[in-house]
Amino acid sequence: MMKVGYLGPEGTFTEAATQAALPSVKRVAYETIPKSIDALFSDEVDGVVVPLENTIEGSVNITLDYLIHHRRAEICGEIIVPIQQHFVTHPNHTKSWSSVEVIYSHPHAIAQCHQFLRQVVPHAKVETMSSTGAAAKWLSEQPEDNAAAISNAWAAEKYGLDIVQHDINDYPNNHTRFVLLKNPASKGISISSGQPASEKTTMLVTLPSDYSGALHQVLSAFAWRKLNLTKIESRPMKTELGRYYFIIDVEGHQDTPLFQGAVGELEALGCGVDLLGSYPCFSYVAQAVKETQNYGSSF
Amino acid sequence: MMKVGYLGPEGTFTEAATQAALPSVKRVAYETIPKSIDALFSDEVDGVVVPLENTIEGSVNITLDYLIHHRRAEICGEIIVPIQQHFVTHPNHTKSWSSVEVIYSHPHAIAQCHQFLRQVVPHAKVETMSSTGAAAKWLSEQPEDNAAAISNAWAAEKYGLDIVQHDINDYPNNHTRFVLLKNPASKGISISSGQPASEKTTMLVTLPSDYSGALHQVLSAFAWRKLNLTKIESRPMKTELGRYYFIIDVEGHQDTPLFQGAVGELEALGCGVDLLGSYPCFSYVAQAVKETQNYGSSF
Repeated sequence: MMKVGYLGPEGTFTEAATQAALPSVKRVAYETIPKSIDALFSDEVDGVVVPLENTIEGSVNITLDYLIHHRRAEICGEIIVPIQQHFVTHPNHTKSWSSVEVIYSHPHAIAQCHQFLRQVVPHAKVETMSSTGAAAKWLSEQPEDNAAAISNAWAAEKYGLDIVQHDINDYPNNHTRFVLLKNPASKGISISSGQPASEKTTMLVTLPSDYSGALHQVLSAFAWRKLNLTKIESRPMKTELGRYYFIIDVEGHQDTPLFQGAVGELEALGCGVDLLGSYPCFSYVAQAVKETQNYGSSF
Repeated sequence: MMKVGYLGPEGTFTEAATQAALPSVKRVAYETIPKSIDALFSDEVDGVVVPLENTIEGSVNITLDYLIHHRRAEICGEIIVPIQQHFVTHPNHTKSWSSVEVIYSHPHAIAQCHQFLRQVVPHAKVETMSSTGAAAKWLSEQPEDNAAAISNAWAAEKYGLDIVQHDINDYPNNHTRFVLLKNPASKGISISSGQPASEKTTMLVTLPSDYSGALHQVLSAFAWRKLNLTKIESRPMKTELGRYYFIIDVEGHQDTPLFQGAVGELEALGCGVDLLGSYPCFSYVAQAVKETQNYGSSF
């Protein structure tokens, strides 16, 4: 059976995304995102699922920086899942949920449910945990505590908690984009559930130094070939201010003649180009597979 | 006397940047970056200094997101200062510094001094604080503790601590770019120390939705006019995955005919354009003013 790593403990959104996309693999929890990526290179796992981008928070810099500076894993699939936060309690406290004294969750989840917390449970103290999964786990181990957690439905089920208020996040259309990574030297692992909506290629581009208009030339190489960009992001090279890696997502597969022509031209211009993978894109609703949907737009 | 807000407590790198650029203003400490920006709009201060970007960590998302989504302050100056981390102790423990049991600092400072900590004081426990200034303040209040902190020279002096090891950061060329903000409705405040190296304009651009090649067109409007971009950064619109604000820095002033032509064309293409300010750029070495230097390169 294939093994796939994720940011644990059990019940995190990363585990929910892994379960939705790869329902028949053995899931292995890791403490941190870098440790889960390292596990690919020590052959502990065949793949890992890592968060790359969220509707509200933006890019997950720890994932991007680890891929850029430490481990060049290959992206072999995209997994988009909705982020639905629920207000959960231990079954002992289901009826008295509105008078809980403490609420546990991850800082991002707390920030995303700010209006709910302020309006519905303004008296409760808020305590931060390392993940929504860790908050649900902690709550399940304190049956006496008059407390609640903010977590996903997956964690509530896993830890035997009751969902007392559904969908409490302030922004209704919140999604996280995860990617499935593999060791480039290993054989493949692929997403087995659902139909892909599209195909995408992610690459790292560095520009020739002190060359005005270089980024414009990079985009021109794609634009005149009608290759659509869906994302461009800059991350520091860490050598000096003002020097960046560009992480560029392009619709389509890197094996097409147009794509290869664009990459050849970038290299001829003096750019560094590192292809992180061409991969199918899947999106899921809750734990069910939904009709494929394409998020975002090209630009 | 003009009043300028900064992220406190006393002794942070933000205070050091404020002191370098605006030596004769009254400095007012705020607990968080959003609170310091809010103070502009309640007329508590005439300006605030906020961190925007660091060589190692990249953009400071909390600053960018607060400017985009909450308060459109105007940028009126750029302040680049070196980030030099030192190992400091209470004078009681100067001689026994290599056997300290606990080290306090901000998580970024701890990450930036990883090699030093691992090689020189591997036995010591590391504890995180909200800023390097807070770590230095805490250390000064615990004369009995066999402890040290990682902080800047400014904080060491302020809190009467001894620098026992200089420049312990792993990356030698670490700088942070701060900006001076003002309320657009108020009269000006400007940087009074040193000579500017250059002039820059920062703008927020949104693209017409689902329009392939739009970002390329935006860059074309600048490229053919030889207006150099020094940075492009994307931040989420928070409405759905794949929709972004672009924060673009361009060399030169927004009042020039070429710049105004470019902005007019972007608007004609259906882009949203919001000018955050045209401002002079200053860089400093330690607390002294250095010959002006231009960091980074245009692209």
